[in-house]
This record gives sequence, structure tokens and C-alpha cells, in this order.
Amino acid sequence: MPETEEAIHKQILELGKKARRASREMMGMSADEKNHALLAMADALERRKEKIQEENARDVSEARDAGLSDALVDRLVLDDKRMAAMTQGLRDIAKLPDPVGRTLKSWEKENGLILEKRAVPIGVIGMIYESRPNVTADAAALCLKASNAIILRGGSEALRSNQAIADALQEGGSATKLPADAIQLVPVRDRKAVTSLITMDEYVDMIIPRGGEGLIRAIAENATVPVLKHYKGICHVYVDGDADPEKAWSIVENAKCQRPGVCNAAETLLVDLSIGEEWLIRMAEILQKRGVELRGDEKSREIVASMLPATGEDWHTEYLDMILSVRVVDGIEQAVEHINQYGSGHSDAIVTRNKGRQEYFGKMVDSAAVYINASTRFTDGAEFGMGAEIGISTDRLHARGPVALEELTTYKYVVTGDGQIKE
Amino acid sequence: MPETEEAIHKQILELGKKARRASREMMGMSADEKNHALLAMADALERRKEKIQEENARDVSEARDAGLSDALVDRLVLDDKRMAAMTQGLRDIAKLPDPVGRTLKSWEKENGLILEKRAVPIGVIGMIYESRPNVTADAAALCLKASNAIILRGGSEALRSNQAIADALQEGGSATKLPADAIQLVPVRDRKAVTSLITMDEYVDMIIPRGGEGLIRAIAENATVPVLKHYKGICHVYVDGDADPEKAWSIVENAKCQRPGVCNAAETLLVDLSIGEEWLIRMAEILQKRGVELRGDEKSREIVASMLPATGEDWHTEYLDMILSVRVVDGIEQAVEHINQYGSGHSDAIVTRNKGRQEYFGKMVDSAAVYINASTRFTDGAEFGMGAEIGISTDRLHARGPVALEELTTYKYVVTGDGQIKE
Repeated sequence: MPETEEAIHKQILELGKKARRASREMMGMSADEKNHALLAMADALERRKEKIQEENARDVSEARDAGLSDALVDRLVLDDKRMAAMTQGLRDIAKLPDPVGRTLKSWEKENGLILEKRAVPIGVIGMIYESRPNVTADAAALCLKASNAIILRGGSEALRSNQAIADALQEGGSATKLPADAIQLVPVRDRKAVTSLITMDEYVDMIIPRGGEGLIRAIAENATVPVLKHYKGICHVYVDGDADPEKAWSIVENAKCQRPGVCNAAETLLVDLSIGEEWLIRMAEILQKRGVELRGDEKSREIVASMLPATGEDWHTEYLDMILSVRVVDGIEQAVEHINQYGSGHSDAIVTRNKGRQEYFGKMVDSAAVYINASTRFTDGAEFGMGAEIGISTDRLHARGPVALEELTTYKYVVTGDGQIKE
Repeated sequence: MPETEEAIHKQILELGKKARRASREMMGMSADEKNHALLAMADALERRKEKIQEENARDVSEARDAGLSDALVDRLVLDDKRMAAMTQGLRDIAKLPDPVGRTLKSWEKENGLILEKRAVPIGVIGMIYESRPNVTADAAALCLKASNAIILRGGSEALRSNQAIADALQEGGSATKLPADAIQLVPVRDRKAVTSLITMDEYVDMIIPRGGEGLIRAIAENATVPVLKHYKGICHVYVDGDADPEKAWSIVENAKCQRPGVCNAAETLLVDLSIGEEWLIRMAEILQKRGVELRGDEKSREIVASMLPATGEDWHTEYLDMILSVRVVDGIEQAVEHINQYGSGHSDAIVTRNKGRQEYFGKMVDSAAVYINASTRFTDGAEFGMGAEIGISTDRLHARGPVALEELTTYKYVVTGDGQIKE
């Protein structure tokens, strides 16, 4: 059923208006009321499990018929294990501390005014994501916990699954203090709906896109609502001349191989050869034994001839695969320059025992997370102790790195006086 | 000399590249080095005072010839008093604490990783402003103090003055550790330069526009770089039934009359008549004696017949003048609803002795600054104790309310380990 642009725009605008109203009501919800809603939503997911899996089966079979790759189809599937994880996710979020209402800072002025900088909800979040239907529940729960209303726009291939999950969440919430429009799903497959969602500044305060770089760039270019972007993770490990050789081997191997398909995996090794050529020879053996393809610059290939030659393109590439580019640098300054030039501002590590260089690296590398003697693989809301994350930001403003509950709030000043007026 | 779009774009792109390089160098500047640069810049402004005033006189005479209003011409003028204030501003900023490098939070994980959330510079700021040439020095100094590079784009009628000030700042900085391109001024009058500035995401991290709502909307609509917006100040005072009548008179009078042309002045009075009709009658007398034109809704005009009738438009209007709209509300809920619907999220006040209503107002009014028993006129970086401000944000993300040194920083995580790898 093709719909006109205008009809779709009107429909999305209506979702926006409702979300804004809901977000205002949510400003008054207590922590208990929010947690109660989360638990009721978890119960509803369990109650409606069969219905959700039925709808999911229809999405999956349609995706297969449409010739989607096995990997994409796998992401779609909501088996019992994934259903249970989704439900447990909601219960875990209920246990986390309330991010709203925290006093971030408080001080008194000479005139007796008391200023409080207080954490408050952002308002309405627009969440745009691809295949995995579990994001529907995860994102809704995190936004709710931070007292934000959410408008969800999942992948069109998962629309039935997402709708069934959203229905369950709404049913669960309906017996609680949660406003009916706190969680809404965009019900149309047409891409024009996204254009409307990302341009209605009046009703949406932040867009969080989750997906490939292409999706995110397209959204950022066309949005007028602020977008919290995660472009890519071109992460580096710099092995300094003063590195502990054992730790350096282990950190590089972990950063590359432990899970190469994720954004905080390393893509480039930078090495100062004053650690000794033997270090690099052994490193190459370890990685090649794990099945890593090495692409080196000229100097590193003089030492390890089995490396393929790296091209200029390699330094810009997020492989998300068992491939590592290798460059010999002549010290920390060149390493930092390389990282700031080619990196994506995500996660970068130094391995060294030298205190001065640890400090220099921590100060001069312009990334969301900078590691000293540890693997880049720790950049993650749970690993940082922030609870579940809704995403990771490679942006510089508002939030950087893992975006969890606190990052889903903003602040306001509450100023209490006793009749003070400005002289 | 008309220039082609392409030539201008290339020129601005070049400024951007240089600013990015300078901003990376500035990450390594110590507090002392920055303060030294600020003081040297202040000295240079004094040394070059005559030259600056000469260039300013040319701008002023040209503006007069072009028929600019007296008010606009007045803003342009750099007399001795303004020159001294500008110089003193730089010296004051040198005395403020360094906003960069602060540990915002620090914690240890069970695996021994130590996480530090550290304040760091944003990078490159694009500042777009209208007439007043003193903004050139103020904005440059604040950005420098937060280790940000700045690209300045002032009003074209002030180009000679701005250039003379920027030259002085650069000369002052040149004898210090400040990178030569830390402070750059867009040297072309053509508006196409603004289009380039606000779309080169790769080189500019944040745009701060200062000017009328029209300017800011045009920038926000066309920018791909994040814009810190200040749209307008439609500020309210709500006088509750339990207000101290004397304090309520004094706060409303102050919020409206002390300086009506600024964004934190009140534009609308909301009153719960359970305080007594006499309160409103006396309030109207006080305000009318000060020369305020009152525009009331039906109910308030039944009590004070001398008010003009308010139209729907009035609730949306930032008068910036001795005009106040007045509406009778039936309690705090209606007051909050009015503020959240018509306000601009800037500064809003309640006057009441009732604790529960103070709390409700503080929680439910969705504005950058919420006042309890105090005038809205205090929303200002200096009044809040933050030092000088570069602007006020009515946005919700990154910074809300006064934007001073801390708001000109972002953060990163520095994670220190001892060889930790992800299991």
C-alpha cells in the first residue's frame, strides 16, 4: 500500500506530538514507578512470547524468500535464548540506579542563591536501527529508565517482530504509570518516515542511529535534530620502545583476535622498533598462527617478509575481520600523529612502562577512550560499569564513548532564593 | 572584488585545516602557557589600541553612510571604555581556573582497570556573530582558555575592527607557545563563507552563533556541524496562591524592568488569583508606573481594566521591551503547562512559600534555569559563578543555560591497566 509523502509525514508528526506529551508526563515519574513499568514490560514479553515468535517467523521466512544473506537472517531470529536475554535485560535495567534527579553539582552564591545542577531527561529520543529486533526492547527500556519517550524505527525486514515486541511493551506498561505514548514504533516501511522523524525538531530532541556507516552518514546529512553518531572504530595499539614485551604481545593479540568483528577491535599496530626486531617477528608469528592477515609498511616488511604490503587505504580501513595493518613509527610523537590523522576517535592503546609517555599519550590522543597497558576491547558500557549501553558515540559533543543511562540525560539549573532580585 | 563560490570555499577550508592542526597542538598546552598567551594578548591590545580605533572609525563612518540605525552604529563603536573592558576581560579569563584536564570522575573496576573521565578541549569552534567587535576578543580568549582553536566570523560591517583586534591577538600570541593558527578570522565579507564554515565537519567541531533568531535558524538549518543554539528568551514568572506578596511584586518588577532588552527578562506573568485580586491590582500599578504596557487575558482584564487585550500571539512573543503579557491560571499545573507550551526553555520562576509546589515546579518546568523565589535575571555565566560566558544555550544537548569555560570542553576516558585483556 503505497502512501503519499504528505500522509506519511502527517502520521510521523502525530507520533512526535504524542511522544512530546508523554515525555512531559514522564518528568513526573518516580524511580519506583519507572522500575515497576520495566518489570511489567518484562512480564508481558514472557506472556506474549509465542505471539512474538510467530510474527518473527513470518519476518524470517520473508527475509529468506527475499534472498537476504544467512548472516542477516541470523540477526533477525528471536529464538528462546534471545527472548530470555531480552526479558532479562529489562529486569537488569530496573535494578540500575535512577539517572534522573541526580545533583551533579550544587553551590551557594554570596547573595544567598542556591544553585543546583540537576540531571533531567533529554525528552524524546528517535532510535533508528537495522535488523536485530531485540534492540526494540533494549532501547525502549533504557530510554524509559532515563524518563525519555522513544520513537522506534527498526529495519523494515523486522517490522512484524518489532511491532509484536512494542505491542507487548505497551501492554505491559499500560497497567502502570507509564504514559501510553512513551514507547511508539513507526508503523510504516517507507523510508520517507525516517526523513520526517529526523527533521521534526519540535518533537524530537535526539536521534540515535545504530547501523552501518552509510546509514549513519545519510541520517546525519539530512537531520536537523541532533544525531549521536557512531561512525566506525579504527582502533590502534601503539607498542612503545619501553613496552613490556609479553604484555604487548598479549594486548595486541587480544585487541585484534578476541572478537574482530566489533568496533573496539584493533585495526592497526604501530610499533617503535627500539623494542627490538625480535618482538615484531614473534608478534607476527602469534598473529599469523591465529589466522590474521598482516599488511605492513615497508619497514615492517623488511623484518617480517611474509606480510602483504599495506597501501594508503589500509590506514583508513575498519576491517572488522582477521586483518591487521602494521606500521613502524619512530617514537610516540609519530604514533600519536598517525592515530589522530587516521583514527576514528574511538579507542586507542599504548603499551609502555614509561610514565612520561603514558601521560603524553593520554593527553594527546584525541579519542573517546585512551588505554594505557590494556586492550582496546574494553570500550563498552557494561565493561566501564555503566550498565547496558544504547550505543557508542564517536561524536565529541554531549556524549563520547559508551552511551548508557547517564548519557541519556541532560541537565538543568534549579535556583532557589528568598526573594533575590538583580541589582 | 567578487569571488567565486569555489574560491571562497577553498579559502575557508584552508582556515579549517590550519585550525585543526592548531587544536591538536593546543592539547599539549599547560595552564601557565595559556595564561601567558592571554596576558600577552591583552598587552598587544593595549599597544595597538590606536590602530584598532582607527580601523573602527572607518567601520563606523561607513556604517553611518550606509544608513545603519543609531543603535547598530552604537554597538560598533570601540571607545576607550570598551577597549579597556575588552583588555580587562582577557586578564580576567587568565585568572580563571583551567577547565581542561579536570578529573570529572574516576573509578576502579574489579579487573584492576582504573577509569578516569577527564575534561578535554572540544577542538575547533566556529563563532558567528553580529555587530559588536569586542566579541572577537572575548570569544577568542574563552576558546583559548579551554584549549580550543577558533575561527571567527563577525558582522561584515565590523570587518576592519575585527581584523585589527584579531591581528593584535595574533601578534600578542606569537611571542608565546600559542600556535599561530589558534585564532583565525574569516577575511571575506561574502556570506558564502558562512556556508563553508558550517558544513566542514572534518575541521570544525561546534558552531556558536550569536545574534537574532533569524540568523541562528538559518545557520541551524544549513549546518552539518553541531550548532549550539540560543533562540530566544520567553521567560515567565508564576505567582502562586501561597506567594509572599511583597517578594512577588519585587521579583516580577525586577524580572521585567531591570533590563527589558535582554533574553532573561520576563515576558509573561502567570498568576493564581487565590493570592487575592488586590495583589494583581497593585502589581499592575507598580508596573504601569514604571512604564510597562500590560497585555492581559480576559480574566486579568476583569480585574485590571487598563490592560490591553492579549492575543494568542502574545504568549509566543519575546518583546525585549517594556511590555508584559498577563494570564490568570487556576493553579500550578496550568502554569507549568503554559510555560512548557509557550516558553523557550530559557528561564522561568515561581514565587511561592509552598514546598510541594516549589518542588513540582523545579521538576516539571522544562527549562535551562528554573527559579524558586528569585528573579529570572540571574541566568548568566558571571551570576552563576562560572566566569565570563560565550553565550547561553536553549538547546538540550551538550550544554544548557550559560556556556562558559567548562561548557567549552568535552571529555574522554583514560583507562590505565597493567596488561588487562578481555576474556
